[in-house]
Amino acid sequence: MSLKDILKLGLPKGSLQDAAIAKMAKAGFHIIVSSRSYAPYVDDEQLMVRLIRAQEISRYVEHGYLDCGLTGHDWIVENASKVHEVGEFQFSKATSQPARWVLAVPEDSPIQSPKDLQGKRIATEVVNITKRYLRKHGVKAEVEFSWGATEVKAHELVDAIVEITETGSSLRANKLRIVDTLLVSTPRLIVNHASWKDPWKRQKIETLALLLRGALEAESKVGLKMNLQQRDLAALLKSLPALRNPTVSNLSQSGWVAVETIIDEKVVRELIPQLKAAGAEGIIEYPLNKVVY
Amino acid sequence: MSLKDILKLGLPKGSLQDAAIAKMAKAGFHIIVSSRSYAPYVDDEQLMVRLIRAQEISRYVEHGYLDCGLTGHDWIVENASKVHEVGEFQFSKATSQPARWVLAVPEDSPIQSPKDLQGKRIATEVVNITKRYLRKHGVKAEVEFSWGATEVKAHELVDAIVEITETGSSLRANKLRIVDTLLVSTPRLIVNHASWKDPWKRQKIETLALLLRGALEAESKVGLKMNLQQRDLAALLKSLPALRNPTVSNLSQSGWVAVETIIDEKVVRELIPQLKAAGAEGIIEYPLNKVVY
Amino acid sequence: MSLKDILKLGLPKGSLQDAAIAKMAKAGFHIIVSSRSYAPYVDDEQLMVRLIRAQEISRYVEHGYLDCGLTGHDWIVENASKVHEVGEFQFSKATSQPARWVLAVPEDSPIQSPKDLQGKRIATEVVNITKRYLRKHGVKAEVEFSWGATEVKAHELVDAIVEITETGSSLRANKLRIVDTLLVSTPRLIVNHASWKDPWKRQKIETLALLLRGALEAESKVGLKMNLQQRDLAALLKSLPALRNPTVSNLSQSGWVAVETIIDEKVVRELIPQLKAAGAEGIIEYPLNKVVY
Amino acid sequence: MSLKDILKLGLPKGSLQDAAIAKMAKAGFHIIVSSRSYAPYVDDEQLMVRLIRAQEISRYVEHGYLDCGLTGHDWIVENASKVHEVGEFQFSKATSQPARWVLAVPEDSPIQSPKDLQGKRIATEVVNITKRYLRKHGVKAEVEFSWGATEVKAHELVDAIVEITETGSSLRANKLRIVDTLLVSTPRLIVNHASWKDPWKRQKIETLALLLRGALEAESKVGLKMNLQQRDLAALLKSLPALRNPTVSNLSQSGWVAVETIIDEKVVRELIPQLKAAGAEGIIEYPLNKVVY
Amino acid sequence: MSLKDILKLGLPKGSLQDAAIAKMAKAGFHIIVSSRSYAPYVDDEQLMVRLIRAQEISRYVEHGYLDCGLTGHDWIVENASKVHEVGEFQFSKATSQPARWVLAVPEDSPIQSPKDLQGKRIATEVVNITKRYLRKHGVKAEVEFSWGATEVKAHELVDAIVEITETGSSLRANKLRIVDTLLVSTPRLIVNHASWKDPWKRQKIETLALLLRGALEAESKVGLKMNLQQRDLAALLKSLPALRNPTVSNLSQSGWVAVETIIDEKVVRELIPQLKAAGAEGIIEYPLNKVVY
Amino acid sequence: MSLKDILKLGLPKGSLQDAAIAKMAKAGFHIIVSSRSYAPYVDDEQLMVRLIRAQEISRYVEHGYLDCGLTGHDWIVENASKVHEVGEFQFSKATSQPARWVLAVPEDSPIQSPKDLQGKRIATEVVNITKRYLRKHGVKAEVEFSWGATEVKAHELVDAIVEITETGSSLRANKLRIVDTLLVSTPRLIVNHASWKDPWKRQKIETLALLLRGALEAESKVGLKMNLQQRDLAALLKSLPALRNPTVSNLSQSGWVAVETIIDEKVVRELIPQLKAAGAEGIIEYPLNKVVY
Repeated sequence: MSLKDILKLGLPKGSLQDAAIAKMAKAGFHIIVSSRSYAPYVDDEQLMVRLIRAQEISRYVEHGYLDCGLTGHDWIVENASKVHEVGEFQFSKATSQPARWVLAVPEDSPIQSPKDLQGKRIATEVVNITKRYLRKHGVKAEVEFSWGATEVKAHELVDAIVEITETGSSLRANKLRIVDTLLVSTPRLIVNHASWKDPWKRQKIETLALLLRGALEAESKVGLKMNLQQRDLAALLKSLPALRNPTVSNLSQSGWVAVETIIDEKVVRELIPQLKAAGAEGIIEYPLNKVVY
Repeated sequence: MSLKDILKLGLPKGSLQDAAIAKMAKAGFHIIVSSRSYAPYVDDEQLMVRLIRAQEISRYVEHGYLDCGLTGHDWIVENASKVHEVGEFQFSKATSQPARWVLAVPEDSPIQSPKDLQGKRIATEVVNITKRYLRKHGVKAEVEFSWGATEVKAHELVDAIVEITETGSSLRANKLRIVDTLLVSTPRLIVNHASWKDPWKRQKIETLALLLRGALEAESKVGLKMNLQQRDLAALLKSLPALRNPTVSNLSQSGWVAVETIIDEKVVRELIPQLKAAGAEGIIEYPLNKVVY
Repeated sequence: MSLKDILKLGLPKGSLQDAAIAKMAKAGFHIIVSSRSYAPYVDDEQLMVRLIRAQEISRYVEHGYLDCGLTGHDWIVENASKVHEVGEFQFSKATSQPARWVLAVPEDSPIQSPKDLQGKRIATEVVNITKRYLRKHGVKAEVEFSWGATEVKAHELVDAIVEITETGSSLRANKLRIVDTLLVSTPRLIVNHASWKDPWKRQKIETLALLLRGALEAESKVGLKMNLQQRDLAALLKSLPALRNPTVSNLSQSGWVAVETIIDEKVVRELIPQLKAAGAEGIIEYPLNKVVY
Repeated sequence: MSLKDILKLGLPKGSLQDAAIAKMAKAGFHIIVSSRSYAPYVDDEQLMVRLIRAQEISRYVEHGYLDCGLTGHDWIVENASKVHEVGEFQFSKATSQPARWVLAVPEDSPIQSPKDLQGKRIATEVVNITKRYLRKHGVKAEVEFSWGATEVKAHELVDAIVEITETGSSLRANKLRIVDTLLVSTPRLIVNHASWKDPWKRQKIETLALLLRGALEAESKVGLKMNLQQRDLAALLKSLPALRNPTVSNLSQSGWVAVETIIDEKVVRELIPQLKAAGAEGIIEYPLNKVVY
Repeated sequence: MSLKDILKLGLPKGSLQDAAIAKMAKAGFHIIVSSRSYAPYVDDEQLMVRLIRAQEISRYVEHGYLDCGLTGHDWIVENASKVHEVGEFQFSKATSQPARWVLAVPEDSPIQSPKDLQGKRIATEVVNITKRYLRKHGVKAEVEFSWGATEVKAHELVDAIVEITETGSSLRANKLRIVDTLLVSTPRLIVNHASWKDPWKRQKIETLALLLRGALEAESKVGLKMNLQQRDLAALLKSLPALRNPTVSNLSQSGWVAVETIIDEKVVRELIPQLKAAGAEGIIEYPLNKVVY
Repeated sequence: MSLKDILKLGLPKGSLQDAAIAKMAKAGFHIIVSSRSYAPYVDDEQLMVRLIRAQEISRYVEHGYLDCGLTGHDWIVENASKVHEVGEFQFSKATSQPARWVLAVPEDSPIQSPKDLQGKRIATEVVNITKRYLRKHGVKAEVEFSWGATEVKAHELVDAIVEITETGSSLRANKLRIVDTLLVSTPRLIVNHASWKDPWKRQKIETLALLLRGALEAESKVGLKMNLQQRDLAALLKSLPALRNPTVSNLSQSGWVAVETIIDEKVVRELIPQLKAAGAEGIIEYPLNKVVY
């Protein structure tokens, strides 16, 4: 079903779709989703994009219907998909905390550890991950698939839930307490073993990975430029390790240099006052599309 | 977990929610859904309403977390839930055709009958119904759970799908052909066996069923009233069987009667011209809230 | 292209669509518009509904692609369509004032009468109606088709416009002055001459017209019921001509009668205080679906 | 500023606007709000409607800019407006509980009674009501006007709030505890004293009140009709006091009567099973527009 | 009607409006559209902007109501407007394919070439273009103006349509086949002949065109910077013609240079792996607002 | 209530919220507003952000519930808040005109100056500012708080209003005339006197101010780069004062220099034609995140 010199890529449909398409655009691949959203247009004749629920991507990559895909580590584990992981691509990071699947119970529940689940009923979207967790702890409990709104079930319909969270705020709002963490998950680029052995496809995937990584890298970085007297340069570089490896070019005005570097955007808010103090002038920060070391 | 003299009723959350709540209101039970939609307010202290995905209701009724619920026959079968069915309540009927789960393949697929599925891969939301169907036909095939957008998968990701349809128009738009029907489904009011044995709960459920049925009946019926000369009455009733059992009352104007009846709204569009021809005057049609025979 | 025993009906697409479909439902024909809105489902196998811009319906009825349609008198005139008019059906009446196509100019324009248009430029959606109007007044002016937002053009881009209005409030908000009225328009049910000669189609159209008229009639009417002492009846009927021809039935309580009638909803607000004064008790007003005299 | 033979009526703009306009329509006065929503169209030449914030209506009625208005008792008290109250008109009743302005504090606050407010800071939309309440309890505290989102302030920005609630669920969700109730409020029809003395205006207002009350009454009532054998009538009426004062009419079929009555919609759900048990047949419930006793 | 030292510019209202305004902003002219969208604010006192349907702009430019405008080549041809074209400005390019007006028929239609249109009926928004096309082929057919939804008409209401398309996907979804292309269209900046002769206006238009072109150019270009050893520079430039004409500046670290260039964004995805292979370090890509050669 | 080493910052909730959060992000502080919008997440552990109505921020800063806040000068004055102003931060500038609170009356009102307000009634959201203005002019008039839609009140409910405006277009649309300006307002960063004395907080606020100013500065500036022959440089710099203080670096191609500068974006549209004329090549404009001199 796969074509010669075409790489079939699965992207997550739904809540992550816009973020994934935006990152692909930053990597240089422009995708246009029409109303029939399954098979969007992409401006690369060697690429075919399919929008599929994140839960299913690893399954279709494994079976070879897709060559590769972007999906969460959690769903690769849940589906027990045998695929090659090219790497981690954090394309949709709202907060600085990773997504975790946790075991949660009502605040006033007697359940304090996985052992207390014996004979209980648990609702979750990740039935296999939960069953494996119970086996690991030698606990027998019923695990049922939850079609959604899992959090509200913990108070009346089941004894515990296994649910995804970043900051835990939604769990707290539902008066639930976290008992344990089952899995920490981040997005991955995966490829099936056959496609990974095909030299053309592997080359194409590695280029895609390089560009995506360059685009993701650029999201948290900015360019910084400033002018400085030559004599202040050494002191500046010594006292500000964040500026390591800047590009220093001579200005036509003698005794002055232009210093330019790429740094973490988060560092800028502490760095700028220090740069001013060290004699830098005309400091500007500019945005980046890609950074490739 | 169930309380004395409280009946816990599960209603379908999501696309059927508004229709279910509207029908409950017509039956006399007014439900207000706030932003935290799981546990809405209902103006009957003996009733507790929970909004739950239709797919899950039968499971929670069976386990006793709910006393009763409105859900589709399909999900009762899929979950193999052991519950008592109080009756069929067609509360959300857009067209006159019932919902069916069908086996569908691309228009140009070689698959013509269930036998041709041997060794194939099928995507569906009703994994158990599909597996049972395959067993019945002595066919071995892989069945995988589909998280949605099943129709678009049939062309690339799987060989066949089992999907729900009413008119088949969405299947046709996706260039799919129906091979067979696995199940015809309608909404049911179900109750768990323990609650059905509790006299108070059974009485409460039967009243609810009576009122719901009265409200549903009224949806497809209208009241019709007209004035007629006494001497034309027999001929009118004879020639128009749809008017069987009308309420005939004498008017103060001698020789005239008022005829009033409840009939199917669909009949009215043929009946009114005939009534005029038979001498009826001042024909009016009015809406009904409930009809209980 | 037209089928035997199928009546093809065009309904206006767009701003009038919901009102037209609601009226058809009140008449007894239930239409379901799916996302592909041109060819909706209707629960009558003898009827085929097409949603088409009101501007075009008369053209397709005239040519026989449709048997009949609901459209404005204005577009029948603009297209100079040769069709049979079954009648006026005011299915979308927001205010009590009819829609009019008027000649409008900026408040401070020197144009005071059609004669002053000589040599001017006029923008309008109804080019033919406007040209005929100019010919009638012996005036030569350029008429150009306006694709919308006609009102804002009158101040800079043209000298005058011909635009539709009900209350004139949008014209006033744009600081325009009405110079003359070219055409008053109401919705019509039209049929092409061939279909009108076909006995089956004519019968079907006349039934449709009867039911639509019954539904429209019911919009502005209500049912009114009250109890009254027999001795007060004559005085009541004499003093309240709006109650003419009520249905009077004897109650089991001797000396009392029930009076029931259908009246204009607008009259009720004056009538009820008078009825109370005349001795009526237990006055109730109820809604109607159809009224056929 | 008020005109002869025109009654100027203020209706609440915003969240209550749709409910108020719907009730006016049921009373027989049809209002069309265009985009410039302050001065809508109404189909009664003797009526002029203005849409104004509920908080301000009583002020403009008192000053005579409006003759009358629909507004909450709370804002009449807050503004200390000297107006005549024609009556209570519960036109927007979501739950069966009245709206209350309550003093609320964080769940873990030491404040347990109004006395504990001494020296504290309170945020509220009803500054005057709150100040009066404090004076009544001999407490000195700072009261500041809150522009909205009052509930979130109680945890960080102030010590207590005075806020409106029906069921208390929003307060609970914000982890606030109710300490005391300051005022229970319902909607009122008010008129200024001068307009109330004008005979024409008073007559117009009283008719409006009569019709509005009839429309509100009809909201919670339904019509109920059934057929019954004459011999069962006395027993039915005796055992079912809710049916008091029905209209009983003789049917042409000897020995049978039609019974018709208007009852509270809430009673129907208990009544219908009893009616069936008592021998009633063909029970129908129908909706009402107005009920005037 | 045109003022001294003011340039009146028409921009397309509706679906292209946001794209046009965004491009003007990139060119340096910031436009704010209030609710009365015809005459927006622009931050240049010498410019007056009018939002007008693309179909009409060329007409108002020709007549002198506007000095210049952005509109499609198709509508200039359709209106047969005599205007000066300053150039092509592809300001709204979703795909890499140009917009085309095509003759389309149902997939199973017997029509295979323009000759087969003899005696047929064609619906289109571009009546004049279609008539001219028919004349060119010596074919007589009826051409009628379509007010929209032209594609659905081809199956029932007319024999063929002339419709605009980029990728043809909407035509395929409607089961239509393309028979011929009548016109390929791109956006143009046009000016009337009088304004073009006015030196001040011509200067203003040429500056506008220069800046717009710079902004459009920048859309498909990016800046690329990298550090390189001096000795690798010649090889790099030779093997990578896309890097032609880079700015090479000396770094303070001896033996290293900084290479900076502006290239097509589409080339980057192939170039970056090659640059890395050629020894480039610290490659960054950054966005551009304008590029003027 | 304030914590050690935490700075509590109030940002305006509502219409200015998105602009304020966007500017904070440009300054380097990323805020995520969840559905419970009062206490959003910010990626700086030393910062706590609260979203509060602009009208209230100065009050809570003054009382010490917040350390600092962004709010309008108008509300600081209206609340008579005693706070320290760190500076003006024009974070939401749609037009180039400042926001003004003006006294406005109907176009045909006899009121021509503040003196004419004697004995009149004025509606406004800024009651204190208005009262102070009246006192200053020795005029006695009633001032009442307006809960919104103030403009429509001027024609019927009051004699004059004090309302905010930028361009005056909304006032003109309501046929109101501006009589006088009471206050010109811009956004300010304010801090309470205690927090300003705390060295850690003052340092934190000054850094925040530096970064915010850098981000705001960058909004109206762009980077400009071009290549030039060394011999043309002096002439270019002399004739184009806007280019003052550029960074000039030597290119490897002898005789050529790269010129780079940061300039007002508004100047670019005039500058680029001049640069081309002066011999510049490869002119590019690029966006900036921050500019700190």
